[in-house]
Amino acid sequence: MTTGPRHEYYLLTPGPLTVPRETHEAMLRDRNPGGAEHIGMTRDIQDYLLQICNGTETHACVLLQGSATYGVEAGFQTLIPKDGRLLVIVNGFYGVRLREIAEAARVDTTVLQLPTLPLPTRADIEAALDADPAITHIVLCQAETGTGVLNPVEMVAEVGRERGIKVMVDAVASFGGVAIDVAALDLEAVFISPNKCLESAPGLAIVLVKKSSLIAAEGRCPSAVLDLHHQWDFMQKTGNWRWTPPTHVVAALAHSCKRHAAEGGSGPRLERYRRNWSILVNGLRQKGFTTLLPDDVAIPIIATFNDPADPAYSFKDFHAAMLNRGIEVFPGRLTSEGTFRIGVMGDLYEQDMQHILAQMCEALEEIGVTLPIGGSAKTMETA
Amino acid sequence: MTTGPRHEYYLLTPGPLTVPRETHEAMLRDRNPGGAEHIGMTRDIQDYLLQICNGTETHACVLLQGSATYGVEAGFQTLIPKDGRLLVIVNGFYGVRLREIAEAARVDTTVLQLPTLPLPTRADIEAALDADPAITHIVLCQAETGTGVLNPVEMVAEVGRERGIKVMVDAVASFGGVAIDVAALDLEAVFISPNKCLESAPGLAIVLVKKSSLIAAEGRCPSAVLDLHHQWDFMQKTGNWRWTPPTHVVAALAHSCKRHAAEGGSGPRLERYRRNWSILVNGLRQKGFTTLLPDDVAIPIIATFNDPADPAYSFKDFHAAMLNRGIEVFPGRLTSEGTFRIGVMGDLYEQDMQHILAQMCEALEEIGVTLPIGGSAKTMETA
Repeated sequence: MTTGPRHEYYLLTPGPLTVPRETHEAMLRDRNPGGAEHIGMTRDIQDYLLQICNGTETHACVLLQGSATYGVEAGFQTLIPKDGRLLVIVNGFYGVRLREIAEAARVDTTVLQLPTLPLPTRADIEAALDADPAITHIVLCQAETGTGVLNPVEMVAEVGRERGIKVMVDAVASFGGVAIDVAALDLEAVFISPNKCLESAPGLAIVLVKKSSLIAAEGRCPSAVLDLHHQWDFMQKTGNWRWTPPTHVVAALAHSCKRHAAEGGSGPRLERYRRNWSILVNGLRQKGFTTLLPDDVAIPIIATFNDPADPAYSFKDFHAAMLNRGIEVFPGRLTSEGTFRIGVMGDLYEQDMQHILAQMCEALEEIGVTLPIGGSAKTMETA
Repeated sequence: MTTGPRHEYYLLTPGPLTVPRETHEAMLRDRNPGGAEHIGMTRDIQDYLLQICNGTETHACVLLQGSATYGVEAGFQTLIPKDGRLLVIVNGFYGVRLREIAEAARVDTTVLQLPTLPLPTRADIEAALDADPAITHIVLCQAETGTGVLNPVEMVAEVGRERGIKVMVDAVASFGGVAIDVAALDLEAVFISPNKCLESAPGLAIVLVKKSSLIAAEGRCPSAVLDLHHQWDFMQKTGNWRWTPPTHVVAALAHSCKRHAAEGGSGPRLERYRRNWSILVNGLRQKGFTTLLPDDVAIPIIATFNDPADPAYSFKDFHAAMLNRGIEVFPGRLTSEGTFRIGVMGDLYEQDMQHILAQMCEALEEIGVTLPIGGSAKTMETA
């Protein structure tokens, strides 16, 4: 097994990430937004993304210029009526972001603030809904990459169905890796990014919307560019995007969908990430590191490690030593200070992970950390 | 002089357009949005775009994910107070779009509907303002690429200054080609695209905003992602974009700004477009074609030709015959039906224009049009 680098630069943030060379190359050409090729690519993306979440019959796939956050806000502005109220489940950085977007968009919001762990329970959700009968919608983040927690979307969707409350899922970091059945869960909206498990370039948002809700939302959105109905309706009728699309980024995503299909879809892709994650986590545990989270709640798209207790360690020095090696790692966020995070999504295979692991050990020793380390903080407990 | 193609594919729409190969190649790498390189590229873009319009002291350059239209709406939503009223000057397709955006964003709007020609006069603007004292803002499109008309921005800005009314300019198609002095004209906002005269890839919006107005707009925008103040303030403080930026598209634009500077700025670039335009217009006039507009009101970034009277001509066939030759041309829009349009922006030089002209003649003969043509519609009159 060779362990040399396959990329000159490894971007190990939880997205944007290391995009395959051939996906980059799809951006080397100009395309007419109204031409047959671009219209076909747009349709192929929509069809594929609906297909892999069982949404072909029930849902629409709306593409939007911007970033994933644009999709989230567009969903809120298009789908929540003026007299609606949104329950935001917050147990990490991206939950906070959902709340911020809702508040900035002047959506009436109730916040269910929870700790990182234990995971939200049915009782938590039911108590929040009982306490506020005005709630019409719920939103939660599936993969809280601020820490690496995988939230129980199925349970929340079930509670929503029981009570006639519409559930929206921020699957930005998870879609294309963690399977989701939008029809079975009867989800109102699912927010997706091209630059996470789909392994493409950033520059657009994807929103899967329940078709009947989208049709009912005609004329509601107080924005031209964030109106999901308008964008979808225009695309249905003309094949074209309502406003100039990021044609190069669209081409990259069309290519990425084909790669995703060629790998066998979300299941095999997540298995690859799990292998990446295991190589990294097992390797660093051998060196005395501990993960922030217990394995059973951790999503294997990012690994969060507690900082070593060694006084020679600083994230800044570690980051710089890694960057010198062409590898970019990421600090902890919000509730996870005193940690560092390594994304294992992207164009990464065993060879890459072995290379990254070896470089991490070298970099740590270079900044004066003795391996194996004497200790780091304890892994959190689930209850 | 050789006349062979420099590109496999010429995209002659008025943007997106034919991007230089080296600009495409800037998209072949991943970058960390929070890393020094990306932060530096973002700053370089902001600094350069302010510099070329004399805005360094007075204006801020806000970059936004999306397309140019996102910038326009963000400008309306961020800068026009709830009790404001916007006068939209409409004399073509993009004027209509400005009106649509304002209306969708629930901005109180007055429309000054004018014909394509003659150009708007001072009397037109003054009469509209006299008729509606509630007007606080004016917006107009500088280069109406639906037809090719260059609107009198300086005159409108002067009327605005005289009356204390704030003027916003849609310079989407013109910025980087047509010079504009944002400080001297005291413009409230200028909306720009990367994929017109800056010759870069689509995927973001640029808004130049008067600094004092931007600061005064804190907290006004009823949107998270369209809040120009929030995005600007966050970038000032962190160097980073508020939400995930389209890193590849940003890299392309940073490269495009350097190319723009290397060419000598907006003046030499427009001169090149003018030479391109002349080659095309003179060449087709030799074959009997007429332009929609008289030369003195036509902006030399796009040429609009009246369809030939020859019954063998159809735009569809002409388009297909050109596409077979790797060249994409564009139909007329709205007020200019019965025309076709050729953008002369992008990575185009004399060699390219001679090639394109020769291919157009071949394609026209291939679809059965006899050259020189017997006639086409008359050029419009300015008064």
